[in-house]
Amino acid sequence: MNFQIKTPTIIIDAKKAKSNILRMKNRAGEAGAIFRPHFKTHQSADVAEWFREIGVDAITVSSIAMARYFANRGWTDITIAFPFNINELDDLIELQKKSRITLIASSIQTFAVLEKNLSEVTDVFIKIDVGAGRAGISIENPDLINELASYLSKSCKLNLKGFITHAGHTYQAKGLQAIQLISDKSYRSFQYLKQYTGNLSYMVSWGDTPSCSKANLTSYFDEWRPGNFVFYDVMQYHIGSCGLEDIALAVACPVVEVHPERNQAIIYGGAVHFSKESIAADDGFKLFGYVVKFNDDGWSDPVPGAWLMAVSQEHGIVQLSDNQKDMFKVGDIIGILPIHSCLTMSSLSEVCTLDGTKIHTMNQE
Amino acid sequence: MNFQIKTPTIIIDAKKAKSNILRMKNRAGEAGAIFRPHFKTHQSADVAEWFREIGVDAITVSSIAMARYFANRGWTDITIAFPFNINELDDLIELQKKSRITLIASSIQTFAVLEKNLSEVTDVFIKIDVGAGRAGISIENPDLINELASYLSKSCKLNLKGFITHAGHTYQAKGLQAIQLISDKSYRSFQYLKQYTGNLSYMVSWGDTPSCSKANLTSYFDEWRPGNFVFYDVMQYHIGSCGLEDIALAVACPVVEVHPERNQAIIYGGAVHFSKESIAADDGFKLFGYVVKFNDDGWSDPVPGAWLMAVSQEHGIVQLSDNQKDMFKVGDIIGILPIHSCLTMSSLSEVCTLDGTKIHTMNQE
Repeated sequence: MNFQIKTPTIIIDAKKAKSNILRMKNRAGEAGAIFRPHFKTHQSADVAEWFREIGVDAITVSSIAMARYFANRGWTDITIAFPFNINELDDLIELQKKSRITLIASSIQTFAVLEKNLSEVTDVFIKIDVGAGRAGISIENPDLINELASYLSKSCKLNLKGFITHAGHTYQAKGLQAIQLISDKSYRSFQYLKQYTGNLSYMVSWGDTPSCSKANLTSYFDEWRPGNFVFYDVMQYHIGSCGLEDIALAVACPVVEVHPERNQAIIYGGAVHFSKESIAADDGFKLFGYVVKFNDDGWSDPVPGAWLMAVSQEHGIVQLSDNQKDMFKVGDIIGILPIHSCLTMSSLSEVCTLDGTKIHTMNQE
Repeated sequence: MNFQIKTPTIIIDAKKAKSNILRMKNRAGEAGAIFRPHFKTHQSADVAEWFREIGVDAITVSSIAMARYFANRGWTDITIAFPFNINELDDLIELQKKSRITLIASSIQTFAVLEKNLSEVTDVFIKIDVGAGRAGISIENPDLINELASYLSKSCKLNLKGFITHAGHTYQAKGLQAIQLISDKSYRSFQYLKQYTGNLSYMVSWGDTPSCSKANLTSYFDEWRPGNFVFYDVMQYHIGSCGLEDIALAVACPVVEVHPERNQAIIYGGAVHFSKESIAADDGFKLFGYVVKFNDDGWSDPVPGAWLMAVSQEHGIVQLSDNQKDMFKVGDIIGILPIHSCLTMSSLSEVCTLDGTKIHTMNQE
């Protein structure tokens, strides 16, 4: 890099990110799915343009505020893939003046509030839990889903498009075979569900980065909403969703202390920059990120034997191996590949590309 | 609360916070120490005024940016208690036009850069590690410390005030006796160190919330820099630094789904609001926060049997006991006492007091 880094700064390799975007768009197309990428990972108007350049015009976000940020920049087809929060009804109505908003929910209570208060016909999905155990009605409860679908079929204002899910349990899957199994099982469950409701035209919207990156999903789902793939991260590398060479985001951090006597360096870069996301082993070992070196073209592969082993509010502790104890000196800028790029983007407001071009994000508003 | 909450919002009980501030100021005074509270916890110009009202005029921060935020609001005596980052030299020089800045570092390399580039005489501390294993020279290496003290004694620009430490290992201490032992041992080590350097007038600046809250530190240290105590949190309650009734910060979160079949509710409130800080038990149980109910006076004690058991980017999963499955409905606003109030304040920009008065923080700049 030929520009000065002063404080922890996200560096995006735009070439890698654009390649990740194009690859995922093509994969979705080949599988017969609408590509509606999740923008919660980058939360950036500038990165969003890289999607627009290749013809993407339908997007996913995770909050009304994020929808507003993108609606203000000309995105007119937005799904808010978070259970609608009825306390934000006024903001939704205001937002609908700018963009076509699709909502998700899993209860009659929420849909009834929308039915009563919205003035325009709005597309909705029923949120389904296929095993992640977070939001949505369990797919193993087709009666409850059917009840909600029947309720919505009588609505004049809410247009039920189908079912939406996030198979977040692929993040805990051990290997690609397990990810494929989750995808296959979900596909069959949705086929059964559509038959059970008597409406085969219901869409199924799918979305996790591991399965969209690697599983065979041909003709399985009508829409894909992965988000993380734009940058990937160490977590996705561990799951098997990407190679190290696909990771398109590193955090540039100043070295503020070196401790050769304990093979460690202290960096300016901590929980407020990376969050406290880690990959933990049973023996207490925790990995908070890989260490890379910046060079003229971007950054190196992870330095073997070096890793970010602890973070507190602003400090990070980098562990080095015996022969690396003199590798860094005070003032050096080193790179950290974070565990979770979404949380890193959400935490840091200093973002630029490898050539120093500043990137606008929601955090800067 | 008699004002509308739409999205996750930090609620500060100003009465509790002011009481925490006064108690800590008095404890420092009774122990014979200068009170230089750490403002990284609240990062708020408004909360800072609660300190100023009772005569506090010396403060601690953790970054140049935070120093600038408070310098712009009339704080003229600021210690930046983070190893000085030589990449921010220009910003430091600019900042010194507004406030008297005290710096900390632990290497000749860093001090040499300051010596060469600063134009005005600047107070500095040598950062010492008393066992936390993070930043600073180990107190068990008096030769290295002495070498640095000798180097600084010859400086015309850098005025060595003494030694500064953060006994972060009190956070892992089991009970108050262990915290007292860490404090006692550190006191004796610093006494030895001062004798070793031949300069008994060196100050010792001390700082963790657990020991400052509960240990007997009478005549031990010259300066106290605790920060977390202004709000406390679930972590501090578990350590024993405070009672539940002292916790002065809760996050108001909308309920977006209820799942009586699995005794859970889904809230709008996740890792981007609380960070991923948790208290973990060996059996895999993780606590991300306690659940409280808001009332006319503030909030209730934690609801027994209810806790925040998982967070993802924007979602939180609240676990309830069998007889609580119908406790919450969609749209309710519930309170979460977070594990770590510093990271919560650093993450969220929506902050107000119990009466709805908005609180300004660095995040809003």
